[in-house]
Amino acid sequence: MTDTLPIQDLIGLVRPQLDRLNRELVQDLAPGHREMLPLVEHVGGFRGKQLRPVLTFLAGMAVRGATHGGSLGDDVVTVAKVVELLHTATLVHDDVLDGASLRRRIPTVNQMAGVEVAVLLGDYIYAKAFHMAVQLPDPTAARWLAETVRVICQGEITQVLHRFDFAWTESRYFQVIAEKTASLYAAACRLGGHYAVASPAGGTEARLRALEEYGLELGIAFQIVDDCLDLDGDERVVGKSLGTDLSKGKITLPLLYLMQRGAGEGERLRAVLGRSEAEALRRLRAEFPLEHAVAYAMEEAQRRIAKAQACLSALPPGAARDALHQLAAFVVTRRL
Amino acid sequence: MTDTLPIQDLIGLVRPQLDRLNRELVQDLAPGHREMLPLVEHVGGFRGKQLRPVLTFLAGMAVRGATHGGSLGDDVVTVAKVVELLHTATLVHDDVLDGASLRRRIPTVNQMAGVEVAVLLGDYIYAKAFHMAVQLPDPTAARWLAETVRVICQGEITQVLHRFDFAWTESRYFQVIAEKTASLYAAACRLGGHYAVASPAGGTEARLRALEEYGLELGIAFQIVDDCLDLDGDERVVGKSLGTDLSKGKITLPLLYLMQRGAGEGERLRAVLGRSEAEALRRLRAEFPLEHAVAYAMEEAQRRIAKAQACLSALPPGAARDALHQLAAFVVTRRL
Repeated sequence: MTDTLPIQDLIGLVRPQLDRLNRELVQDLAPGHREMLPLVEHVGGFRGKQLRPVLTFLAGMAVRGATHGGSLGDDVVTVAKVVELLHTATLVHDDVLDGASLRRRIPTVNQMAGVEVAVLLGDYIYAKAFHMAVQLPDPTAARWLAETVRVICQGEITQVLHRFDFAWTESRYFQVIAEKTASLYAAACRLGGHYAVASPAGGTEARLRALEEYGLELGIAFQIVDDCLDLDGDERVVGKSLGTDLSKGKITLPLLYLMQRGAGEGERLRAVLGRSEAEALRRLRAEFPLEHAVAYAMEEAQRRIAKAQACLSALPPGAARDALHQLAAFVVTRRL
Repeated sequence: MTDTLPIQDLIGLVRPQLDRLNRELVQDLAPGHREMLPLVEHVGGFRGKQLRPVLTFLAGMAVRGATHGGSLGDDVVTVAKVVELLHTATLVHDDVLDGASLRRRIPTVNQMAGVEVAVLLGDYIYAKAFHMAVQLPDPTAARWLAETVRVICQGEITQVLHRFDFAWTESRYFQVIAEKTASLYAAACRLGGHYAVASPAGGTEARLRALEEYGLELGIAFQIVDDCLDLDGDERVVGKSLGTDLSKGKITLPLLYLMQRGAGEGERLRAVLGRSEAEALRRLRAEFPLEHAVAYAMEEAQRRIAKAQACLSALPPGAARDALHQLAAFVVTRRL
């Protein structure tokens, strides 16, 4: 996990808040029946970079130009927990959709306890997250996040409906990844800022919009990088098998580049997509200029990151704003 | 659908509200992308007896002794819509869990569009329901229903974990069906009452508790009847294949009765459960006193209905209270 080192410096700023979040989430998720406990504890093992709650905390600090996370109130922690739980629920269901057997080197819920339990446990975690959100006196988070989950599902469904669709376009691709991935980043950032401000003064809305836009562009870049890693990542570093998008017929940005090179390219791609992961990847590498396609996509990701960073100028300078700036840079250099 | 006639008289009292609910739900569910529209419209075809929204409306009338549904405000309609959507979401996921291909004689979502879309569409409907709930100025429904969905999932997961568990007990069976089924009936009734009362006066809480208890007992009876119909229903009337619980190893009340008849009965049942639906049902009928087992369970359902009806004495007399009384009776006489 050497490549998480740079990000750990950025996280240091909000380490106490993140530790508190992880401590509380174990208790919060505790089920009413003891036989469910192993399932709930197992899901805790999926914990990854926790980018979203980190963003919530940093956004909360940055909106006020705070120098340390200690000034963040309980409500910001609650929002970060809800965001992390919603993300966890999507992971549990994603593994069902993908028939995945491993996540972060431990068995997925569907692998461990079957598809039925995995679908229900995802629902359970969603419900728990919403229940936490509606305990907040200010209903903004509950409203924003319920709509965000609706939008995430809408994006995911649309993507499934357009697999193997060789008429798919870049604008629809960007729309779908904004919905399925970036919307939660945008919510994590905006709501972190929202709940960190006790009484919104003039100018607060402009800062919240800047944070939301930052999260959106960062999230879009994050998904583009994810899509590239599926094609040219290092399987041992990424920690999951590559070529799954190809095998499933997902038309991601590198493929859209290849399709745009000329008439008939879609037809040639059609012969590659839908094959086994290794076979699809082998043929794509052999028959298409894959490096160009990935470079094209990564340039777009870089542009999005630059846009995200530019949004930060609306915020007061300080350590949190700097951390958000570097976090954005991390998203395009990550290899997992 | 001849056997829905008796219930239609009871529904007559709240027909305008139910019509409004069905009209609005079509618009409310409208997705942002047009390719999702057929999915959302298809789910509308699952509409059944709509017992839960009917209960919400009748509870709203009964709590105030109202004589017609016209006095029910918008918030009661919203609550009824949320309850119906949450129920719909559970149906979509249930069909995934059961690998079911038909519901109410039309294809299930998983049959029509695949498991991935079905899981995501269930999540989409949950999110939409929560989003509607959090628009209500009074957060009671959002809080109560988020917790209810958590409890539903907890009950369902616990049931899955105890399949083929021949140490399963009646008390745990009742606990699980209270969670997975009756909790939503209880919420539908209580929240219908809650949102129908503009300013809660003394004595309101007693009425709301009575409605909640009524819904809980009615829901438990409903599930017991469901479990009996899986064993002795008429396939053409029930509209789905029988013996699915047997095949899946679900230990329902009639089976608990059989297990309690003496040592070794659990072992004998073990040889029946888990077989194909028709085979399991055939052997159960041939080797066990099935009528006694079903009669035993139906007696329990009758007791629960009597308890539900007794709760109604806490409410002012009137047409709505009478309808709730008769609705409870319908639950144990229904054959589908």
